[in-house]
Amino acid sequence: MRQPYHDHVVIIGGGFGGLYAAKALGGAPVQVTLIDRRNFHLFQPLLYQVATGGLSPADIAAPLRAILKRQKNIRVLMGEVVDIDPGHRQVVLQNETIGYDALIVSTGASHHYFGSDRWEALAPGLKTIEDATAIRTRILMAFEKAERDPAGREAWLSFVVVGGGPTGVELAGAISELAHHTLKNNFRAIDPSEARIFLLEGAGRVLPAYPPELSEQAARSLERLGATVRTGSVVSDIEPGIVTVRRGEVTERISARTVLWAAGVKGSPLGAILASRAGAALDRSGRVVVEPDLTVPGRPEIFVIGDLACFSHQTGAPLPGVAPVAMQEGHYAARLILARLAGRSLPPFRYTHKGSLATIGRAAAVADFGRLRFGGFLAWLLWLFIHLMYLVGFDNRLLVFIQWALNYFTCNRRARLITGKDGISP
Amino acid sequence: MRQPYHDHVVIIGGGFGGLYAAKALGGAPVQVTLIDRRNFHLFQPLLYQVATGGLSPADIAAPLRAILKRQKNIRVLMGEVVDIDPGHRQVVLQNETIGYDALIVSTGASHHYFGSDRWEALAPGLKTIEDATAIRTRILMAFEKAERDPAGREAWLSFVVVGGGPTGVELAGAISELAHHTLKNNFRAIDPSEARIFLLEGAGRVLPAYPPELSEQAARSLERLGATVRTGSVVSDIEPGIVTVRRGEVTERISARTVLWAAGVKGSPLGAILASRAGAALDRSGRVVVEPDLTVPGRPEIFVIGDLACFSHQTGAPLPGVAPVAMQEGHYAARLILARLAGRSLPPFRYTHKGSLATIGRAAAVADFGRLRFGGFLAWLLWLFIHLMYLVGFDNRLLVFIQWALNYFTCNRRARLITGKDGISP
Repeated sequence: MRQPYHDHVVIIGGGFGGLYAAKALGGAPVQVTLIDRRNFHLFQPLLYQVATGGLSPADIAAPLRAILKRQKNIRVLMGEVVDIDPGHRQVVLQNETIGYDALIVSTGASHHYFGSDRWEALAPGLKTIEDATAIRTRILMAFEKAERDPAGREAWLSFVVVGGGPTGVELAGAISELAHHTLKNNFRAIDPSEARIFLLEGAGRVLPAYPPELSEQAARSLERLGATVRTGSVVSDIEPGIVTVRRGEVTERISARTVLWAAGVKGSPLGAILASRAGAALDRSGRVVVEPDLTVPGRPEIFVIGDLACFSHQTGAPLPGVAPVAMQEGHYAARLILARLAGRSLPPFRYTHKGSLATIGRAAAVADFGRLRFGGFLAWLLWLFIHLMYLVGFDNRLLVFIQWALNYFTCNRRARLITGKDGISP
Repeated sequence: MRQPYHDHVVIIGGGFGGLYAAKALGGAPVQVTLIDRRNFHLFQPLLYQVATGGLSPADIAAPLRAILKRQKNIRVLMGEVVDIDPGHRQVVLQNETIGYDALIVSTGASHHYFGSDRWEALAPGLKTIEDATAIRTRILMAFEKAERDPAGREAWLSFVVVGGGPTGVELAGAISELAHHTLKNNFRAIDPSEARIFLLEGAGRVLPAYPPELSEQAARSLERLGATVRTGSVVSDIEPGIVTVRRGEVTERISARTVLWAAGVKGSPLGAILASRAGAALDRSGRVVVEPDLTVPGRPEIFVIGDLACFSHQTGAPLPGVAPVAMQEGHYAARLILARLAGRSLPPFRYTHKGSLATIGRAAAVADFGRLRFGGFLAWLLWLFIHLMYLVGFDNRLLVFIQWALNYFTCNRRARLITGKDGISP
């Protein structure tokens, strides 16, 4: 059903890109339809805290309808886009077809196992709420199994995180805290602090996108928390209970029951649909190569933003898949649509980089603001502040703040629930 | 493996009964093993708030290991008991056998569909965290479907709660609030306040265990919140989208996509195991008929407490399956075990009834303290206070208090997440 009004903007995906585009179009003289498979916006930067029992899913998710309820020109539609027809300017859902005048595609990215898809079941990645609660169950269940299985204890108490980018560093740091602080005195047969936590990174240092001195500081912080950092290490195989790691000429087999994947991402399937339907070019991560104004070449009415976009016009290298890029791109796409309606145009998109922050764990983070680079407690406080500020919803901000304060002073992580079908009796 | 010490108390089930028994044995001269299929104690009285998006699972659950970490004579074992061997005084787990000197069975109850087990998939009940998040997904998804399916709108916006006891009343009240307040302005094609919420009760009034004037007050409060109360109404069939209700001679078919079961409970399967292995008698709900000291007849070392026990020695009628009964029974069983060790005994168990409280919704509850009976805002405040007081864990108490305050002033229910395999795109 084509909408009965002109200037209908369809946004696919309610992540940072799509939501900020929608907000920028709220109250504007256009009709907006925001389509998402889920009913909530997810604050992905804090997903690792759900995966390690520090926060609850509802703390980092906000219902899209609630966020946008006062923007009467926006309707939220929960559904999955299965096709795009650029010729007829339509997006196709399961039982419905929706016409658009402008389309913003912001469906993000998922895990990429570099061709070894059978690793997926053995080494889950962290993109959705369900991923997070399943990983939480795996991690906590490993300690339960270790308590009851003396023969298999070492493998149950060994955790491997593949990928030393921000997510991998956060996960390794949080699991270390869990083992060394949170679970202290919880068990009778094991000492949780005997857990080994390996962080594997293929490059020569963790956080390769940061300046070398901050990578070094992050690695030191991780070791202090009890994790083992292995750089220059590439996973060559994953079997149940065994991870094979190649480091130069040396091959090592690590006996570990819990393996988490934080290594590669690939663009969402809508990238491939845009390639075949609109002739878009994809980079090797499946991201859509966009024009300086974030549109698909030859299709000025189709924008691709966020993790699904490959934008290289500013520095030559693609912009990284981080929230600030997606938010600024969403805002730009909305502004350009409104400018065109007013018969104007805009200069090409330009990302304003305000700085990078990565947290390692309790009172440890690194901050890179170009010339100003620092780590430690101050960087960590700044990280907390920025993340609270961008979290959607006053309730969430207040409750996350209180839980962080409690976690800091008591080392507790209250959401240590083993749930789901794998969470009932070992 | 039999434990190498004397006076080993095994507790099966970490609900109110088992947890309060364990706490009373903490630091005492016995070894205690607390076995549960889950790693957490669940505060079941607030489960309906998780099912309706008001609270998160972690707000009403606390890891058993964390609660008991300072009681060094207690070990927590996550596992499922598959058999009990009273002759050898052993409980049998999947891969392990554990000897006991005294056994406390407190595994509670689950739903009972009165022989129509095929209703279970169509009308889920509310006993576990997974039940609660699945029901939350059903309720919220019904509004999403109504928004997109004009032809099926009435059935999607119709909710039937079967059973007018406290849980049914709470669920009907919370769904009414959701429809009338929380979801206001969230949709564009539907008005959520057009939802019909039916509460069906077979007896002549809701809350049949309460004095008639409070039942009446509860029914009035429910109607004011927007629910429809049907007493003397028995469900005779449930098919997808249709509930058939018999009311005297009249049969009515209600077109409703969401049906929730709050009608009957039956004792956990360990009741039947105690019947066949220890000759225990079961009542028609599958509960174990216990002696005045809560033990199984002829097996003074086996206690059955909480919802799984049928204790009729005080008033002639079995004590109700509520938390205060389970807590007091747990405490008594622990005290009797310790008294026996000291060569003493105790008078028979006596339940001290302090009063009953049931909440209906926003600022509405009923309180029955024998001669003192009242409803309304004061009863609701008292209900809030008592539930906060008994919630396990300071963190949970603080965070639930804040969320209730936020919910009261903003009508928001922040945990409105559609999750799980049924929660991705309609």
